[in-house]
Amino acid sequence: MASLRDIATSAAINLLSAFGFLMAFAILRLQPFNDRVYFPKWYKKGIRSSPTRSGASASKFVNLDCRTYLNFLNWMPQALRMPEPELIDHAGLDSVAYIRIYLLGLRIFVPLAVMSFAVLVPVNWTGDTLERSKDVTFSDLDKLSISNVPDGSSRLWAHIIMSYVFSFWTFYVLYKEYGVLATMRLDYLASELRRPDQFTVLVRNIPPDPDESVSEHVQHFFRVNHPDTYLTHQTVYNANKLAALVAEKRSLQNWYTYYQNKYERSSNRPITKTGFMGLWGTKVDAIDHYTSLIHKLSEEEAAERERVSNDPGSIVPAAFVSFKSRWGAAVCAQTQQNRNPTLWLTEWAPEPRDVYWDNFAIPYFELTIRRLIVAVALFFLIFFFMIPITFVQSLANLEGIQKVFPFLKPLIEVESVKSVLQGFLPGIALKIFLAVLPSILMAMSMIEGYPSLSALDRTSAAKYHMFILVNIFLGSVITGSALQQLKTFLEKPPTEIPETIGEYIPLKASFFMTYIMVDGWAGVAAESLRLVPLVLFHLKNAFLVKTEQDRSEAMDPGSINFAINEPRIQLYMLLGFVYSPITPMFLPFIIIFLAFAYVVFRNQIINVYDQKYESGAAFWPDVHKRIIISLIISQLLLLGLLSTKGIGKNSFAILPLPVLTLWFYAFCKGRFESAFVKFPLQEAMIKDTLERATEPNFNLKAYLKDAYIHPVFKSTDIEKPDSLLEEEESPLVATTRIPNKQSPSSSASPASTQSHV
Amino acid sequence: MASLRDIATSAAINLLSAFGFLMAFAILRLQPFNDRVYFPKWYKKGIRSSPTRSGASASKFVNLDCRTYLNFLNWMPQALRMPEPELIDHAGLDSVAYIRIYLLGLRIFVPLAVMSFAVLVPVNWTGDTLERSKDVTFSDLDKLSISNVPDGSSRLWAHIIMSYVFSFWTFYVLYKEYGVLATMRLDYLASELRRPDQFTVLVRNIPPDPDESVSEHVQHFFRVNHPDTYLTHQTVYNANKLAALVAEKRSLQNWYTYYQNKYERSSNRPITKTGFMGLWGTKVDAIDHYTSLIHKLSEEEAAERERVSNDPGSIVPAAFVSFKSRWGAAVCAQTQQNRNPTLWLTEWAPEPRDVYWDNFAIPYFELTIRRLIVAVALFFLIFFFMIPITFVQSLANLEGIQKVFPFLKPLIEVESVKSVLQGFLPGIALKIFLAVLPSILMAMSMIEGYPSLSALDRTSAAKYHMFILVNIFLGSVITGSALQQLKTFLEKPPTEIPETIGEYIPLKASFFMTYIMVDGWAGVAAESLRLVPLVLFHLKNAFLVKTEQDRSEAMDPGSINFAINEPRIQLYMLLGFVYSPITPMFLPFIIIFLAFAYVVFRNQIINVYDQKYESGAAFWPDVHKRIIISLIISQLLLLGLLSTKGIGKNSFAILPLPVLTLWFYAFCKGRFESAFVKFPLQEAMIKDTLERATEPNFNLKAYLKDAYIHPVFKSTDIEKPDSLLEEEESPLVATTRIPNKQSPSSSASPASTQSHV
Repeated sequence: MASLRDIATSAAINLLSAFGFLMAFAILRLQPFNDRVYFPKWYKKGIRSSPTRSGASASKFVNLDCRTYLNFLNWMPQALRMPEPELIDHAGLDSVAYIRIYLLGLRIFVPLAVMSFAVLVPVNWTGDTLERSKDVTFSDLDKLSISNVPDGSSRLWAHIIMSYVFSFWTFYVLYKEYGVLATMRLDYLASELRRPDQFTVLVRNIPPDPDESVSEHVQHFFRVNHPDTYLTHQTVYNANKLAALVAEKRSLQNWYTYYQNKYERSSNRPITKTGFMGLWGTKVDAIDHYTSLIHKLSEEEAAERERVSNDPGSIVPAAFVSFKSRWGAAVCAQTQQNRNPTLWLTEWAPEPRDVYWDNFAIPYFELTIRRLIVAVALFFLIFFFMIPITFVQSLANLEGIQKVFPFLKPLIEVESVKSVLQGFLPGIALKIFLAVLPSILMAMSMIEGYPSLSALDRTSAAKYHMFILVNIFLGSVITGSALQQLKTFLEKPPTEIPETIGEYIPLKASFFMTYIMVDGWAGVAAESLRLVPLVLFHLKNAFLVKTEQDRSEAMDPGSINFAINEPRIQLYMLLGFVYSPITPMFLPFIIIFLAFAYVVFRNQIINVYDQKYESGAAFWPDVHKRIIISLIISQLLLLGLLSTKGIGKNSFAILPLPVLTLWFYAFCKGRFESAFVKFPLQEAMIKDTLERATEPNFNLKAYLKDAYIHPVFKSTDIEKPDSLLEEEESPLVATTRIPNKQSPSSSASPASTQSHV
Repeated sequence: MASLRDIATSAAINLLSAFGFLMAFAILRLQPFNDRVYFPKWYKKGIRSSPTRSGASASKFVNLDCRTYLNFLNWMPQALRMPEPELIDHAGLDSVAYIRIYLLGLRIFVPLAVMSFAVLVPVNWTGDTLERSKDVTFSDLDKLSISNVPDGSSRLWAHIIMSYVFSFWTFYVLYKEYGVLATMRLDYLASELRRPDQFTVLVRNIPPDPDESVSEHVQHFFRVNHPDTYLTHQTVYNANKLAALVAEKRSLQNWYTYYQNKYERSSNRPITKTGFMGLWGTKVDAIDHYTSLIHKLSEEEAAERERVSNDPGSIVPAAFVSFKSRWGAAVCAQTQQNRNPTLWLTEWAPEPRDVYWDNFAIPYFELTIRRLIVAVALFFLIFFFMIPITFVQSLANLEGIQKVFPFLKPLIEVESVKSVLQGFLPGIALKIFLAVLPSILMAMSMIEGYPSLSALDRTSAAKYHMFILVNIFLGSVITGSALQQLKTFLEKPPTEIPETIGEYIPLKASFFMTYIMVDGWAGVAAESLRLVPLVLFHLKNAFLVKTEQDRSEAMDPGSINFAINEPRIQLYMLLGFVYSPITPMFLPFIIIFLAFAYVVFRNQIINVYDQKYESGAAFWPDVHKRIIISLIISQLLLLGLLSTKGIGKNSFAILPLPVLTLWFYAFCKGRFESAFVKFPLQEAMIKDTLERATEPNFNLKAYLKDAYIHPVFKSTDIEKPDSLLEEEESPLVATTRIPNKQSPSSSASPASTQSHV
């Protein structure tokens, strides 16, 4: 195990690299030409726009005001300054709930660290085992850990008692937090302005009717069964092909505009090639070429639009049914309609922008089959993913490459190239796999047939969490592939598994410390720098931006990638729980990560991210569940570790803890979960009554008329698009023609911009 | 292993004893003086009454018509004759669904047996392993089992393929049956006459309100949140003490009547003693004594009644809320009312007679604590119950008895008594424990706080099923206590557990065959004989019956004891699944049991049982789940057995089966379960509409007024008790004074009675 000095050195290096990232971030964000990279949220909101007044041409790109550099870290207090209610207003509850995960972690682990250092460090330090056994190499770090306590010592009771204290403290914090989140969600739903999804229920698996169209059938069914509350409904079209055509046409139009601009500037008819990306093929006049292409596509699109609108076969057996009151919608969403519970399935409609339109037509049987297949596939993905990767790795050696690409032979045989390749190749297949893994998991969730983006994110996160648990946590503790672990687990008695893992745990502390520093600290700092969006924005700006629309699209605010980030936090929390009774020195590393990540992500959600949807923190039950899983794992591992410490049956004193934890989970589930699933009738009634009193003559039917139509139909409408559908729509930049290079409005610090809100 | 001949002998003995029971049953049931033992259901229904016309005094007791004895087995076709819809009408859906479990077993196992005998028996018979290895003793039975197939033989593929065929056939039958039951339940609910529980919702955990009484609070809450449908409500009183007083008074009144009668007959003032049961204490005049006791108790009861009615503290924070329509009740039962999901908990109200009145006042936190405690207690009960029993057994030896009761010493030292005692004592503690086990489990379920008798039965059955699975099935396969098994399981790798058990399975076939014959065949025959109720009825009739009311109470029709019987069927089904691919000879024993039990229980539900409640087959999801559990266990054990048969990794060809079975379970759960939990709005609406059309002026409020008041309040009302509450009420015999010994109406066979219906 590494010594304290090694760890301190590593920490210093990582702190420095994180500091470097932060410096870069602090400087880059003050440059006006990066404004759209670091403050896109304000652009999207229309509050900040590319300033038009002229100035020194250099100051269009570079911030020359030296004073602003002096306080280069002042974004941190700025990020912390916005109060939570305002933040919910500004960024939505999803974002706020997400950063509260870090806060929750701090609330759990800061007291745990204090207690650990107050009680366990002295107990461990004075244990003196390692000093007496002179043959073992040990470090100061080990002296602080449970390894320094002699086997069979009654000092181990301190660890047992503290693990109870830790668990009960965690229960307390988790319970409070779940309560706060449930209240926040209900308040958020209650305080929201009128939104179409409050009145709307998504109905799926509408049975076919020989005599009626889907639309008529829906209307008759709800007229009869919800006579007092049914208002209107919107059928769903299978417009996937049309959406593809529309997207293609938009791209062609951009190219057309690009060549048009080029022609206007140079007066030479631009020329393009007909092949892929204009790279090969016969040369043609670009403007004519794209005009004809657009014309052809427009015809195709019109035909498809005609077909979709008129062919009853393109109507999917699903509908968005709207009610006269929130009460009516709440009733319909929570009840069973038909005696066959797989028909007329009702659920809360997701926000219009949260709808995932491709998954509406799956019947119940197919849905369960898909879930089975995905579950089996996930199992194989988690436990057997190393097999194809090892296979690819065995192919991707130098000999293999020489065989397939003989012309590369001279290059490969250069000694320096060869050594680089040999070091680089074996890892590349794994790296590529890990990079695309979240997309694979998302695709699996899509196959499972969830109807909203938020649900897709949640289930992908669950899958990624399992992968991390098995392949990163267990895979690092007991070195070896998941497949080998699976074999070990199946061939060992269940009581020995915690022992086996528990034994390795103290040895791996320094490895995980380094992991947290590299993956956690530096990763978060890199997140703030937004290196990839920064480079991409400038690349696009320089080479690809042809139209104003393109520039606005080049500005990619991104969003909290819940499906990737949340499972990672869970890994750190798991490590924190596992090490808090074993190696207390571990906790400061986690606390630094959590605090740092909290500040960075708070800045990101204020200035950068633009969420694709707002689910009202619907993911919280999952977060809670996964923290409980981490807690139980840590308790079982401590039990395993203690049983190797020679205190006999006393180690079973831990056993009630997992049982209590399970009970705590069931208790919280019953107490809070339905706040995230159902909508209480009392709340709905209060809001209905209030609204009826304030706006007795509001025309709800007109308001809901087009809320849930497929975005491709919306874009052709003459009326102005609904503000809620801005994601689907393009004209988000200021409509005035803005020159390609703008002068900065001023060197105003973002804080002043924020104060405009 | 026993030979075919041994098994045949055992079968013959058991068949004979079953036949003996049946003969006794056939003869006893024709005797008029047993009429109330074997046909109580018709008495309860008021269709059959003790006949009053005089005849030969002997024929009052004994059936002298010889012809009726000739067709002594004709009760069987009679039992099968009543068509199912009529049976539902006569006995309720619970009873019909219960006997359908036997039918389901037949539908599964008859084809399984046919396929087994057609395919597996020839494969096994020609395996020739046992004949070649001459040193092993083997029997004909073994030659038919998988033991006769040589290790590593490709013949084992037959067993693998057949296990797939068996599982798929089981899926098919289970799916069909679940569908049929769901339809039956919904039809039953739809076809029912108006019942209070259709309009009523049980609301629990009503929060206290400082300004309002519970009743006002309920009224205001539902007036506001269900403005169009709320009708009325009924608060719940904590009348447990009052109920005890009422019961005590009734018993005293019976004694008073008894002494009054005695005095009238003998003219001597009867004398009793004041001590327990009149066995000791000072002698007093019995009539005066009981008069004064009743007078005292009446005052006490009146005071308590006054206290309960006026003390707001005796109102429990629960209420039965009734709605104007079934639709309104269905909506309220399925939705969340308050933002705190543990307050204003709504669920379908159980039938008035199904209500378990003691469990209404438990708050959510206490409820979850109770469930935790019961779960832990159940774990210890299942795995550690042998410890106290062994302890008691060690005390209950002859020396111990001699020490405690020295005066018994001369008796014990008689050689014959001693040997009997020594054989008898060790088992008695275990036998007593097993006899009271269902009551212990029921008490545990009561602690868990379920509000209805049907839910208590269901959860007790689940607990008993677990106990049987661990202590009878596994305990018999790997001989040894559950605690030893637990140790084995914890100390063996999970992959080896199915192997360990699987290895023993073929060896235990003859043991389980005998078990089925003794416990199953003879047990069912004994059930038909109703020996205990028969003896008890005649004992009570002779010694304890003092009043007409007592005679009616002495007639104990009993009911299907779902909590005991269903887990036993599950054990047999488990054995059937386990042995169908291994020892096909096993199946006929199960089929005979199922067929026989079906006929007997059909007779019992027609003529005897009087169900305490009607839950509309709400237990079916549990039955389905437990069959699935049995199926998965059997698949894993086959996997374990095959992996000892030397076919290497080929045995993993079974592995997809448990996964498929789990998927099938999830599929059926989604497809059917909600029919047993929720009430579809469409059905409610149809029934409401129909009723509104046929009876537009029905006064529902008056109808529901007293439906859900505690039975002790009901019995003092002047109005006639609701027919639905007959269970709670006593006057069920004909009100005319009937002489103690009646003449039989005729020797009419029960069939003619049935045709009166």
